[in-house]
This record gives sequence, structure tokens and C-alpha cells, in this order.
Amino acid sequence: MSKICEIVAIVRPNKMLATKKALAEIGLPSFTAFACFGRGRQGGRIGELSYPVSPEIVEKAKELKPTFIPKRIILAVVPEAMVEKVVQTIIKVNQTGQHGDGKIFVLPVEESLRIRTGEKNLEALF
Amino acid sequence: MSKICEIVAIVRPNKMLATKKALAEIGLPSFTAFACFGRGRQGGRIGELSYPVSPEIVEKAKELKPTFIPKRIILAVVPEAMVEKVVQTIIKVNQTGQHGDGKIFVLPVEESLRIRTGEKNLEALF
Amino acid sequence: MSKICEIVAIVRPNKMLATKKALAEIGLPSFTAFACFGRGRQGGRIGELSYPVSPEIVEKAKELKPTFIPKRIILAVVPEAMVEKVVQTIIKVNQTGQHGDGKIFVLPVEESLRIRTGEKNLEALF
Repeated sequence: MSKICEIVAIVRPNKMLATKKALAEIGLPSFTAFACFGRGRQGGRIGELSYPVSPEIVEKAKELKPTFIPKRIILAVVPEAMVEKVVQTIIKVNQTGQHGDGKIFVLPVEESLRIRTGEKNLEALF
Repeated sequence: MSKICEIVAIVRPNKMLATKKALAEIGLPSFTAFACFGRGRQGGRIGELSYPVSPEIVEKAKELKPTFIPKRIILAVVPEAMVEKVVQTIIKVNQTGQHGDGKIFVLPVEESLRIRTGEKNLEALF
Repeated sequence: MSKICEIVAIVRPNKMLATKKALAEIGLPSFTAFACFGRGRQGGRIGELSYPVSPEIVEKAKELKPTFIPKRIILAVVPEAMVEKVVQTIIKVNQTGQHGDGKIFVLPVEESLRIRTGEKNLEALF
């Protein structure tokens, strides 16, 4: 594995605050997040809705699917030694056992820099 | 090439539905998408507009450019063996021959995980 | 370092236009940008606000933090030989010396394609 890794986690929007808190607790104060739309094997399950809907809307949604489900992407760049802990923390907070819990990908990073100071690599991470 | 790859495709917004359908047809049910703004060699061509505009607006747009054009980013993580098929499918659907058709980048992925089950790597992809 | 690299720069929203101009001047006409929310060691500083607020709002913000600060992500894919110049240009434009100036990450790219022509790798970049 690379010495520095980018962790890309695709999670449910309503798990963002708990994920942020859990990552801060394991010593990861820095990350970036943004909204996205995802689609998996289920093709956009009506079960993803977090609010009650009428049976007519459920039927309508079934006709329209497969569709896109709102998700959040978390980007965190961490030392290799921290990857496993971050991954397990994200899984712990985001695992409901339902389809749509999301995915985590780990990509190699060749260089990292802090713009404020010009610091590089491990010194630039937190 | 890595055993698992992240495909980053930057495409026109009005090609998203056709791209989604074409990817599902080749057996790629899972991906993530989000809005972005792009700028290429053309610096934001007025020709990108998909609706008719008056000559005055065309002139105004020429003065204002180079600007940013609305695009969509598609992220798909697939086994290496599937990269070529996914890339060619995205090109087939998105190639109009006009500037602004977009780009595709393939990045190495070191690890992938499914949050729901904790499955790893190839088992975690679809 | 890889022959082709993806540069991911997380910067302040109000630096986007200056960054775009500076990148064009060094011969990088093509990139993609989108909005995100970031959080760093400071946990969302009130000092990030670019408009005047009343003392009550400052106090309220201090209570609420750590929170997320609006940022922009710039994605640019360039030949390895251009990475250092692009990185230094982004630092020059975005370095205010204040916390929140942002980060730059460089990731390896295995393949790049231009959708319009099907061109590959270095030929596909600009």
C-alpha cells in the first residue's frame, strides 16, 4: 500500500454527523465532503426514503426506478498506518445491514501539500 | 494496470440517463455521480448551450468567456478486466464529435469495501 | 511518480477565479471544479466568513463548531512534468497564511481518454 492514501467513502446523508464525530474521536480532524447521487445493485430502493410516503407514491417510485439515491462522498487523505482504523470506523458508524449502506475505496496518493505553509507529505496531512 | 480501477468520466449533463442505461446493459449497476463545472481548451464555448439564444446573448457570452460549463462526473469502481468495456461504452454514448464531449480518467484502487457486509476488494464491487 | 497525475486541490471559493486565470497563464486550460465542505484541524473557524457578522452570530458560531466550511475542489489531470508548476501556481494564488488555505493531493492516473476523438493518454490531456 502507498505511504499516503485517499479514502473515498460513499455514505448515507443522515450518517454524516455521526461519521464526522467518530472520525474526530480517532484523531482524524480533516476531511472533505460533498453531495452525490448513487445507484447500486438495487437500482434505487424505495426503502431508502427516510420519511413516510403513501402507497401510491411507493408504487410510482417502483415504476420509475432504477433511479439515483442521494449520498455523501467523504474524502480523507491519511497515512497508510491509519487506513485500517479509518475504514473500520466508517463501517462501524455506517453499517445498518440494509442495502445502500455504501462503499469505501482506498486510492494511492503520490504527494500531499498544505497550501498555507507549503509543507509536504506526512507533515501536510493534519 | 491495477486489479481494481476507479473510472472518472466527465460528461455532458444531458447524457447522464443514456450513460446510466448503457452501463446497466453491460453489467455495471453501481456508480456514483455528481455535478461539476468544467473548462477545456475552448474556454467555455457558446456552442455548449442546448437551447436557442438570441444573437445578443451569444455576443455577451463571447465577451464573458472563458467560463465554466456544467458537467457531470461519474465515478465507477470496476475490476481491471472490465475497464475497457466501460470506457468504450461511455465513449459510445457520449461522443458527439463536438468540443465538450468530456474526458475519462482511470485511477488505481488499492482496496474496496462494502459497508453493509464488510466484504473486500472484488467481492465488494457490485 | 506516474507519467500522468491527477491534481486534487481543495481551496477557498473566493480564490477560484484567480486560480483559473493563473492556471490558464501557465498553459493549463482544462480542469474541473465543484463545491464541497471541508473541515480541518481548526474545526471550522469563524474567521473563514468573508462578510461582517454581529458579535452574537460569532458567539453562536463558536458554540456550533466544529462545523463544515464551504470549499471548492479543483481536479486537473496533467503530465508528470507539469505537476510541480501547477502545484506551485495553486499555492501562490491560494496561500494567505491563514488556516483554511487548503490542501493539494497528487494521485497517479493509469489512463486518460478524450471522449470526442478517442485519443489516449498524453494526447488526451489538453
